Amino acid sequence: MKMKAAVMTEVGKPLQIQTVDLASPKANEVLVKIEATGVCHSDLNALYDDTTPTPAILGHEGAGVVVEVGTNVKNVQAGDKVALSWMPYCGTCEFCVTGAVHLCESAFGPMFNGTLLDGTSRLSKDGNPIYHYSLLSTFAEYAVVPEMSCIKLPEKMPFAQASLIGCGVATGYGAAVNAAKVTPGSTVAVFGIGGVGINAIQGARIAGASKIIACDVKDANLEIAKKFGATHTVNVGKENGEEALKSLTNGYGVHYAIDCSGHTSATETAWKGTRKGGTIVVVGAFNPAMTLNLPAGGFHRAGKILKGSFYGDIQPYRDFLRISELYLDGKFMLDELILKRMTLDRINEALESFHDCNCINVGRSVIEFTSTPIQCEETSFERIP
Amino acid sequence: MKMKAAVMTEVGKPLQIQTVDLASPKANEVLVKIEATGVCHSDLNALYDDTTPTPAILGHEGAGVVVEVGTNVKNVQAGDKVALSWMPYCGTCEFCVTGAVHLCESAFGPMFNGTLLDGTSRLSKDGNPIYHYSLLSTFAEYAVVPEMSCIKLPEKMPFAQASLIGCGVATGYGAAVNAAKVTPGSTVAVFGIGGVGINAIQGARIAGASKIIACDVKDANLEIAKKFGATHTVNVGKENGEEALKSLTNGYGVHYAIDCSGHTSATETAWKGTRKGGTIVVVGAFNPAMTLNLPAGGFHRAGKILKGSFYGDIQPYRDFLRISELYLDGKFMLDELILKRMTLDRINEALESFHDCNCINVGRSVIEFTSTPIQCEETSFERIP
Repeated sequence: MKMKAAVMTEVGKPLQIQTVDLASPKANEVLVKIEATGVCHSDLNALYDDTTPTPAILGHEGAGVVVEVGTNVKNVQAGDKVALSWMPYCGTCEFCVTGAVHLCESAFGPMFNGTLLDGTSRLSKDGNPIYHYSLLSTFAEYAVVPEMSCIKLPEKMPFAQASLIGCGVATGYGAAVNAAKVTPGSTVAVFGIGGVGINAIQGARIAGASKIIACDVKDANLEIAKKFGATHTVNVGKENGEEALKSLTNGYGVHYAIDCSGHTSATETAWKGTRKGGTIVVVGAFNPAMTLNLPAGGFHRAGKILKGSFYGDIQPYRDFLRISELYLDGKFMLDELILKRMTLDRINEALESFHDCNCINVGRSVIEFTSTPIQCEETSFERIP
Repeated sequence: MKMKAAVMTEVGKPLQIQTVDLASPKANEVLVKIEATGVCHSDLNALYDDTTPTPAILGHEGAGVVVEVGTNVKNVQAGDKVALSWMPYCGTCEFCVTGAVHLCESAFGPMFNGTLLDGTSRLSKDGNPIYHYSLLSTFAEYAVVPEMSCIKLPEKMPFAQASLIGCGVATGYGAAVNAAKVTPGSTVAVFGIGGVGINAIQGARIAGASKIIACDVKDANLEIAKKFGATHTVNVGKENGEEALKSLTNGYGVHYAIDCSGHTSATETAWKGTRKGGTIVVVGAFNPAMTLNLPAGGFHRAGKILKGSFYGDIQPYRDFLRISELYLDGKFMLDELILKRMTLDRINEALESFHDCNCINVGRSVIEFTSTPIQCEETSFERIP
């Protein structure tokens, strides 16, 4: 079939809206009509990453409707409303069978090679293959994706909100709920208030934390954090983060710190500002050349737990559904994460906007695919200059 | 009452066998006739530590019989056989009520000041106070200790073996069972084969680990480790530890690494040699001036857990009893940990022996208090030169 898609033709160049070909789903694959796709900072990273195979169709936060299923597909059928996970898992490796499906390695090879799980592409133009991205490629009207990437959602779930669940929302929520395992009445610090950190705050809020302390170097981000549940804020560029966290927690430090910043210095501050026996979760991707330096004095005595968290340690079939139900019950804020709604032809504007605003990383642009273009809506929280 | 005790009169000087005075137990205290006491490397550290208040009676691995109880004592009565814990806890702080009694802070002040929990001493000579050590002071015929330090043991438990449970045994066993939570069929690396590491190996063995890989820089220690359950050994002074661990585990790295060495370089190797989603437990005390350097690349993706462990994360009332039962069932090796049995007048020989043998840190000298001196027995495992 023919479809419209935004194609990455070269590293760092604007995406081009082209008509491309999409082949039918093979075994264990599903054809999905994409109704909405979030634009994530990782898409921008991929656009500027010279290891991304090109030409490619980016996009990895998607929601839509199942149109057709390949052979062997059991979990979804035509007409189902689905959100997409970019981390399909095998279900049989040691990681999967011990509940750590987010650590399954089966998808990595194809993911990095720009194919689907069988090592081939369904995307092409004029007979020349186009690469997939993150096994999804949602910056297009349709996508052929692995069955294990399709998570059926409640019929009431709106597409734009559903699309966001697939990456930043799940990663942040899961970092608080699954990785840190925030408990009611506890104290939580979240470092790095962006598209992931803001949802770690939401996860902590829903888990019943008593104090949720947003930590960032931008006051604008800290102001937004309050709207999503932060009870306190610390500008760690201006204040001593360790002292600030301890002064808010009777001198002990927080029970849980979640670092979504990607800066080792933030993790080090988070470590110091966490109490004995507390947990520090590292969500952000560090510069690989760096080292994380932790103070050795009293290390064993403090009994702290430091853990890395990938994709929010989520179980997509459980957590996508729980987040949807929480949203439908008015408990998880997704509407407020949508900064702009636009059509595919404005995709480059959405990507560029990561560069030009102090606070836009917190919210998302969502691309919607409808027969008539949607009027661009007002941002749901004010931009703070 | 009068009793014989080994008194630390000055930092770094040999202990002096003296007759000293011991006052009756006050409320919540217990008078114990010490029947056996292990000599731990921490006693040697205290002897050379100029922050140890002197004169003091050292010793913190003890077992004996309750002679008299102070008011309010409920858990033990005269005639009970007990092993002693140097970490009494309050039972009501947030650490205690969440199961982390090893993180309770109530004992630290008195411990560092050399008193019992009420801030005073029961020890004296010629009217001048003598300081307690670790709230126990077991290098003496009798001790007045906190009730919460007395753990009642099965009547069949021999004293020498019971005395060892109180520190090195519990710390190593607990690091594997409570902190790492080793699971059946898993792979475990233990770094630093001394009085703690050897019992981490035992904990891993009892927890059903399939591969237990002892890592040390001394071949002699590695040979002893095999007798206690190590299935493989790596001399990390000669081999690349990360590569060795991965080659033993299908390239993945171990599920659990337990570092009892006190060297940050060992922890760093343990980190690298542990698989995705695995747990690295730090038991050893680092030099406070140092930093622990962890590689930043892929930190969040690996989902590893790094945790400090103090006193084996033990619940003394549970774990002392479990270790005793395991010993009595022939499953935990305590006899083999006893390198020498001697009387109190040879205490300095026991302390000095930490300096003069490649492997002696693995086993213990045990001081026994009986009416007739015991003949010095053969070591239970051969010393390896």
